[in-house]
Amino acid sequence: MTGLLVSHRFNARFGKDFVATARRDGVELDLLVLPPDCGARIDDMAAARAEIAYFSFDLFPEFSRQFFSATRKASGLKWLHVFNAGVDHPVYATILERGVRLTTSSGSTAEPIAQTAITGMLYLARNFPRWTAGQRNRRWDPMRSTDFPRDLRGQVMLIYGLGSIGGEIARLAHLLGLHVIGVRRKAVKTGSVDEIHAPDKFPALLPKSDWLVLACPLSEETRGMVDASLLAKLPRGARVINISRGEVVDEPALIAALQSGHLGGAYLDVFAQEPLPAGSPLWDLPNVVVTPHNSAASAGNEARVNAIFLDNLRRWKRNEPLVNEVNKRQ
Amino acid sequence: MTGLLVSHRFNARFGKDFVATARRDGVELDLLVLPPDCGARIDDMAAARAEIAYFSFDLFPEFSRQFFSATRKASGLKWLHVFNAGVDHPVYATILERGVRLTTSSGSTAEPIAQTAITGMLYLARNFPRWTAGQRNRRWDPMRSTDFPRDLRGQVMLIYGLGSIGGEIARLAHLLGLHVIGVRRKAVKTGSVDEIHAPDKFPALLPKSDWLVLACPLSEETRGMVDASLLAKLPRGARVINISRGEVVDEPALIAALQSGHLGGAYLDVFAQEPLPAGSPLWDLPNVVVTPHNSAASAGNEARVNAIFLDNLRRWKRNEPLVNEVNKRQ
Repeated sequence: MTGLLVSHRFNARFGKDFVATARRDGVELDLLVLPPDCGARIDDMAAARAEIAYFSFDLFPEFSRQFFSATRKASGLKWLHVFNAGVDHPVYATILERGVRLTTSSGSTAEPIAQTAITGMLYLARNFPRWTAGQRNRRWDPMRSTDFPRDLRGQVMLIYGLGSIGGEIARLAHLLGLHVIGVRRKAVKTGSVDEIHAPDKFPALLPKSDWLVLACPLSEETRGMVDASLLAKLPRGARVINISRGEVVDEPALIAALQSGHLGGAYLDVFAQEPLPAGSPLWDLPNVVVTPHNSAASAGNEARVNAIFLDNLRRWKRNEPLVNEVNKRQ
Repeated sequence: MTGLLVSHRFNARFGKDFVATARRDGVELDLLVLPPDCGARIDDMAAARAEIAYFSFDLFPEFSRQFFSATRKASGLKWLHVFNAGVDHPVYATILERGVRLTTSSGSTAEPIAQTAITGMLYLARNFPRWTAGQRNRRWDPMRSTDFPRDLRGQVMLIYGLGSIGGEIARLAHLLGLHVIGVRRKAVKTGSVDEIHAPDKFPALLPKSDWLVLACPLSEETRGMVDASLLAKLPRGARVINISRGEVVDEPALIAALQSGHLGGAYLDVFAQEPLPAGSPLWDLPNVVVTPHNSAASAGNEARVNAIFLDNLRRWKRNEPLVNEVNKRQ
């Protein structure tokens, strides 16, 4: 029997099916279920039996504390699988330092996140903020030909990070007629990208970019990367889309560039501090679209994450390499 | 010399270049320029010399009256080219009855209109109305997994009308993973459509459609076509996108279906009465996006329309068939 730490809600919704599917793959699971009250803690005996822990969708954020308190108690824990893709939070460094293996669900939310990013781009490109303001005031106020927005076809989109999310954004932007430039460490050419460059070329690519899209993980390399000097290299009126991590951008510099009119707008799902403080000027700057770190929201994610975890369980049982394994130093 | 009636603004921006380009194609143009004041009328002598009239972008709507007053006076008028695609306005029937030929710029705005329609779809599909309301109130209020929107992939989009606009909407929706069903009179299969059906099958297709997109011209067939009984055939929560003509839909029935919750939302660029009256409930129904008959707005339209007109001028000179010619009875 393999002890698996799971949430109360996961157990209620998927527990039985999950155990049955794992059994068909040769894995006998012993589900160790967290209490339904997020203030309650799992008992020590149960925690001691946990060999694997599953940080599922429903745990975030209310049950995060309860879950990681249990993993700390689980002295026999060997592997943690998480529903999300970004594991820059310090709790994961601690997990890795204990020698626990860590796998993510990278890829499971790429399609919805990319669709959200493209929605933000189209919303700004077609000048919906003006129409939305008109609707709010019951005002029929069409743009005239003298103030029509530029054609989207032929505009340049620079995407920093071409993982599963950046790759899907590239595909969609390319199909909408944009010229797509990708920046990534590994120079893999994908069909959707018109140009691909190494990170050291990033600053030189900014002056010709109408759109800067951040789709990279937060790392020592990317923390604070987009600062005032890089933003200044973008052409006047350029727009920024960030669906990665707020810390990749120098947020005060971004705000200043939006306020001065150097940038023409932004779609931001992530922020230096989350929840975004009520006093932040980002909430009501013109042509700035704010969403609450929620771009992935899609009903199919849960099934996709469960499928990745089940596949990894099979691999675990057979001592095969795990999918989406995170190494200590990345 | 061929007398061509043009707007004051067209003449100022493009007149010289246009005359030069036409000359290279063997057409000597005599530009008859409307006065810069929309209340002023062209003199009778000039009007009498007009063989062709060009209803350009900048004339709509402030100068429409001035322009059509001039075409009425132009007894020698043989051909009218218009910047738009939809010529359901009664003024065009009068033109055709006089024996004047009529050509449109169908296709010139297909890409921006399709992009706007797709923006509306994505905005509703990703549940942006909720995020927009949160932003307006500086409230960080992410959706939890229990209220995530459905995956867009696999949803069914039914498009009525597969001209250049409907075809481009189909292409984009298909690439976003939707199952696209097209309805058109001519059963031409295009690569972007998963199924294609004749108009008599339309009612039977509604029950499986998550999205109903109206992209047809207004005609005797389509006027009032989408009535209460057809809307009732859509599944609960389905959404309607209309970028064609408001009169295609029974608007009170649409409002009732939105208010009852039978429909989950709508993106509407066109209305039974335009400007949409300030008292219309459509302005602030939840999950209804209203734009002011403006979905085509894009800076590249003018050049595309001029190119279509120039091509037709060449054909006119050579007695070749004109592109986008409208027949009396369609």
